[in-house]
Amino acid sequence: MRISELVAESGVPLPTVKYYLREGLLPAGEATGARSAAYGDHHLRRLRIIRALAEVAGLPLGRIRVIVALIDHPRDDLFDALGAAVAALPPQVDTAADYPRARAALTRLGQLYDPQYAAVAQLEEALRAADEAGLPISDARIDAYGGAVRALAEFDLDHAPEPADASAVVEYAVLGTALYEPVLLALRRLAHQHLAAERWRAPES
Amino acid sequence: MRISELVAESGVPLPTVKYYLREGLLPAGEATGARSAAYGDHHLRRLRIIRALAEVAGLPLGRIRVIVALIDHPRDDLFDALGAAVAALPPQVDTAADYPRARAALTRLGQLYDPQYAAVAQLEEALRAADEAGLPISDARIDAYGGAVRALAEFDLDHAPEPADASAVVEYAVLGTALYEPVLLALRRLAHQHLAAERWRAPES
Repeated sequence: MRISELVAESGVPLPTVKYYLREGLLPAGEATGARSAAYGDHHLRRLRIIRALAEVAGLPLGRIRVIVALIDHPRDDLFDALGAAVAALPPQVDTAADYPRARAALTRLGQLYDPQYAAVAQLEEALRAADEAGLPISDARIDAYGGAVRALAEFDLDHAPEPADASAVVEYAVLGTALYEPVLLALRRLAHQHLAAERWRAPES
Repeated sequence: MRISELVAESGVPLPTVKYYLREGLLPAGEATGARSAAYGDHHLRRLRIIRALAEVAGLPLGRIRVIVALIDHPRDDLFDALGAAVAALPPQVDTAADYPRARAALTRLGQLYDPQYAAVAQLEEALRAADEAGLPISDARIDAYGGAVRALAEFDLDHAPEPADASAVVEYAVLGTALYEPVLLALRRLAHQHLAAERWRAPES
């Protein structure tokens, strides 16, 4: 398709598309003349990824570049590529020198983890904040949340692309994190409302 | 306790405590002299709430004021007070004129909801973003996520204060949303890592 069709299909304005091309976030089209090029589904898909990361996850272009590079050239170790790609998403948390609360929770849940992975520091920080607010997370809550979260993570992995296609797996992990986390949080707030209505609201008279 | 002890116990600096007092976010202590006052556990607890909302949820003082007012003077209808308090937390989403995706999902899950509740617009926006990125959320995923989220919301409600103490319930709902959402997201990323390690990582040789 021509660049005008790519703009129409993607909904991304022409100056923005040209900017992404100049910045190398979007690969060049196939030259069809001195001043024209053809674009394919790959370009459309890439534009959608960039938009999701920029608009939904609020990522600056520098971080989008890191993620796109990992999708295009995943490392030999898929596990490492996944960790690096998801770690580029918010929230940005400094790696902790130690992470006693996260370690206790993950040991309790019997989960494998890379201590350097950003989500370990993220969990430590979240557990520390709850402690400091006087609302520490009990072991029973870790068990309940950990079990429920494991169930939905099983669904995510069951529906992932084949691991042989590392690019597709990294893309799925990044978008499934950036796009589905807001869905989960909204669903939790709505589940609370549903249960509060069932349990606490007086029937309409 | 004296104001200096309140500062030491809470970890909130004296100028900040004085600022919260002037702004009415923190109720005045009991006067013990012309220039001194006594503070109690209530003040300590309130300082922790303000700090959690300001530092963890990143809320501006205007929104914290709304939440604190709802905790101090919950409306007659607990259900309405809960909705208003949690709606003051991020993300801020404009109420949608219509919410076809959220309605379909909530109907599918068989959940009661108030269409004006902010989380409905939040869910609509999140589902729309996934659609537009070319990664729409399937019915099977709604079922899987909805079921897992319902399980953890059941735990939350089971451990809520008695509904007769409306202030305590509103406080629990606000803090449980602001403080526990980051825990859940970190746990999901770590569950993915655990499962990816189990399923995809070659055993160390």
